[in-house]
Amino acid sequence: MSSLLLSSQMDNQLSDLVNKELKVDVAAPNKSPENDKAGNHSKRTENDKDGNHSKGSQNEKGGSQSKGKGKSGKFVLKTPKGTRDYGPMEMAYRREVFNVIYSVFHMHGAVQIETPVFELKDVLTGKYGEDSKLIYDLEDQGGEILSLRYDLTVPFARYVAMNKIDNIKRYHVARVYRRDSPAMTRGRYREFYQCDFDIAGQFDAMIPDAECVQLVHQVLSKLGLGEFTIKINHRKILDGVFGSCGVPSEKFRPICSAVDKLDKSPWEEVRKEMVDEKGLDEEVADKIGNYVKLSGREELLETLANDELLKSSPSAQAGFADLKLLFQYCKSLGCAEHLVFDMGLARGLDYYTGVIYEAVLTAGQNFGEEGPVGSVAGGGRYDGLVGMFDPKKKTVPCVGLSFGIERLFTIYEQKMRAESNKVRATQTEVFVVTACKGMVHERLKLLGLLHEAGIKAEGSYKNNPKILNQLQYAEDNKIPLVALIGESEVEAGVVKIRDTVTREETTIKREELVETVRQKLGGL
Amino acid sequence: MSSLLLSSQMDNQLSDLVNKELKVDVAAPNKSPENDKAGNHSKRTENDKDGNHSKGSQNEKGGSQSKGKGKSGKFVLKTPKGTRDYGPMEMAYRREVFNVIYSVFHMHGAVQIETPVFELKDVLTGKYGEDSKLIYDLEDQGGEILSLRYDLTVPFARYVAMNKIDNIKRYHVARVYRRDSPAMTRGRYREFYQCDFDIAGQFDAMIPDAECVQLVHQVLSKLGLGEFTIKINHRKILDGVFGSCGVPSEKFRPICSAVDKLDKSPWEEVRKEMVDEKGLDEEVADKIGNYVKLSGREELLETLANDELLKSSPSAQAGFADLKLLFQYCKSLGCAEHLVFDMGLARGLDYYTGVIYEAVLTAGQNFGEEGPVGSVAGGGRYDGLVGMFDPKKKTVPCVGLSFGIERLFTIYEQKMRAESNKVRATQTEVFVVTACKGMVHERLKLLGLLHEAGIKAEGSYKNNPKILNQLQYAEDNKIPLVALIGESEVEAGVVKIRDTVTREETTIKREELVETVRQKLGGL
Repeated sequence: MSSLLLSSQMDNQLSDLVNKELKVDVAAPNKSPENDKAGNHSKRTENDKDGNHSKGSQNEKGGSQSKGKGKSGKFVLKTPKGTRDYGPMEMAYRREVFNVIYSVFHMHGAVQIETPVFELKDVLTGKYGEDSKLIYDLEDQGGEILSLRYDLTVPFARYVAMNKIDNIKRYHVARVYRRDSPAMTRGRYREFYQCDFDIAGQFDAMIPDAECVQLVHQVLSKLGLGEFTIKINHRKILDGVFGSCGVPSEKFRPICSAVDKLDKSPWEEVRKEMVDEKGLDEEVADKIGNYVKLSGREELLETLANDELLKSSPSAQAGFADLKLLFQYCKSLGCAEHLVFDMGLARGLDYYTGVIYEAVLTAGQNFGEEGPVGSVAGGGRYDGLVGMFDPKKKTVPCVGLSFGIERLFTIYEQKMRAESNKVRATQTEVFVVTACKGMVHERLKLLGLLHEAGIKAEGSYKNNPKILNQLQYAEDNKIPLVALIGESEVEAGVVKIRDTVTREETTIKREELVETVRQKLGGL
Repeated sequence: MSSLLLSSQMDNQLSDLVNKELKVDVAAPNKSPENDKAGNHSKRTENDKDGNHSKGSQNEKGGSQSKGKGKSGKFVLKTPKGTRDYGPMEMAYRREVFNVIYSVFHMHGAVQIETPVFELKDVLTGKYGEDSKLIYDLEDQGGEILSLRYDLTVPFARYVAMNKIDNIKRYHVARVYRRDSPAMTRGRYREFYQCDFDIAGQFDAMIPDAECVQLVHQVLSKLGLGEFTIKINHRKILDGVFGSCGVPSEKFRPICSAVDKLDKSPWEEVRKEMVDEKGLDEEVADKIGNYVKLSGREELLETLANDELLKSSPSAQAGFADLKLLFQYCKSLGCAEHLVFDMGLARGLDYYTGVIYEAVLTAGQNFGEEGPVGSVAGGGRYDGLVGMFDPKKKTVPCVGLSFGIERLFTIYEQKMRAESNKVRATQTEVFVVTACKGMVHERLKLLGLLHEAGIKAEGSYKNNPKILNQLQYAEDNKIPLVALIGESEVEAGVVKIRDTVTREETTIKREELVETVRQKLGGL
């Protein structure tokens, strides 16, 4: 049948026959089991009998729960607690998100750096407060005492200090490690990506800070994840509020860390923490409450700058001046529309010294059913961190941000699936199909020809694959074009080009193959 | 002067003045200190006074030797032994090499996967023989016993077995960890990239194997690193030779591992190891010597297949049959020209079971003065590894390869520097320059406009930067275009576009800016 199929007179009838045998649902969007958490993917792909490789797509979401006891019972086949493998489709979504983010980084002229996955333990010591207990240590195997990095900011500060860099605008995308209680259904892992952009250097007020806000604005806009808000605040404003309300200065950071919980807890709980755990007077806590519940736009800045209590706080006034300037710069840059001045934004980390910001996707705009995702980017100014590494305590002011890239991956994937967008694990453009036996060399020659021209092409790994299985494979994998040859085609020096979606076939001369493929791909 | 400069009548004279003041060597290729190993880069970039960020380019090659004792003397500022940071220029070269390799992987329809940086220690146990002592262990912090991955092949086999994958063609690029004696001047580190491509699945003989050879051929050709050879051999041929020469079967792997040293040691030393260390009879060793010194093309395969001793070895004959087919397939794919059948190629790892190959750059074709770089890619068939992880010992045949990506980076960088190719750390296309004071908002508006159009643009972080410093920055950083505005330009609604190389300026309407920039960039 195969060679008959390709005699030119019978083309259409036999193509029809073949098409009837092809599964009807092949053009459906790539559905991978959304909630398949068990990872026990024993199902084999059906179209897997003929030397086409299924790319492991059945294994999406395969997690660390997949177990297999060896005969001896001693060996459990899994990934370490809190970690997982990422399969082909997940990596394809990730590549798309990264490409958007990298393009914005490059738009800003950022350079890329890379640091080791582990640091001397001393480098990390004293930088993370309570969270230090979450650091992974390496075993002492008779050398230096090492720990896995906990974030990318401390290694960046170490890099700047060690290399005596005066100024740099860099990005760094890499995984970090925290021995946290994993909550894998909520996307919290012990190994996860961070995606950081920072500007180090002594510059004029708020110009680099505004660039960071602009960059968040650009990335979120380009990813098209719906409405978002960029909350801003200033550590000096918070300190001014704390001071004016009567918080003793040694309690500024603990009280700040309580305020940080306002995005997850109601004020009453935060107040309780301030009073019961952190020993604040009730009336001081209540005074703070009057301020940290406020949020608004520029007008609120103006109002608070003239507030009876804060008027006499140089710290608060310095913060207001910065934020006013930031608003103005963001207007000039065209990214002020999403800015909200939120007095309740505090950010957890101790090292921030100036402007802080956090981007949240607006509730109701999230894809999937998991409710608001909260913060997808955050950062701020930290002018003291580099100095902690410099022997002469010479510091380099820094401002930066980190994307919650794992959250962005999840939301982007949900959006793509919701919109039935065709994200493919591969980029293959042409599948080379042979219609009769003994044609493996002809298939390879065609593959060599297409690759030589830079066209992404694959073929079966079987000597004599069945034509139906090959065509099915192309459809299943959404490979747009098939280049089909049988004995008669080879004799006549022609190739049949088949459009995988419409199933239309045209016969062209072999020497026109590359040009025809390019034209057809250009028109898709 | 600044605002005068921009009055249209005086343009040319003043541009001349400005140009005379600009340093003359600015267009010289980016030289970074090749042998600056100390990492004590106390030199500051000269053009760093005016809010332009120097991107840390003075810090290339900053290594772990950079030290700074704190006042307390307890703290040494360095990266862990055998590791280093990678600065902006190095990352730019790396991105170029990766882009070439990724494009070839995608040309073959490979999918991407990612696995955790650490595995359960049990997963790695018993896979690396003697080298197991080089594995980094994590401290037991009250959980699972973990080790950093040693390569990407064992995690891949674990992934395939755990997810019960029948077939997959995947790539994986990530860093691996070996507590080896670092030889950093020779590029041997404890943390380094591996770049792997593997095909798992039960397929017809030599079709996937030929694709691996083709892929190596394509990557090395596209990188343009000069002539190369792809040596091939077959474990079954080696086993056939060992058996026919009288090596007892339990010594096959140790003797194979001795043969593996032939690329670095003369035969006499290898023979000594066989006889003295591994207890082989002298005449057996000499017989082996007659074979492993041979190399040639297809004719040698034919000759050896009819060799008196090997004619009766089913193992050797199976190997010869495979290699003959491999040669034929490679011819059809158009990648046979660099193939050399080398009987002395053994590959170190125990797990290979069939075809093995290794690509070497031909001596004399290397850039820089470090002599031949040796192997830049290697791999082979390993049909038993996945079965080691499967509870029922069900195996999935695999064939794959790994690029010596760190070597390729080094050679590529040497080549680019030798050819004075302009590789830049950033991709910035336009530097926005303001010519007088009080124009920061105008600068930001122009940046917002260019970014909105997807044009990569930067500006100074100073309120009132000096025009000369801004222009110098654009030249130093090889930013092709400058968009220049002063008060008169803003009033007249025009922008001056300056070509950084020719220093030619043209004045255009502000609304033509994006289109003009695109045209000029397209013509560069």
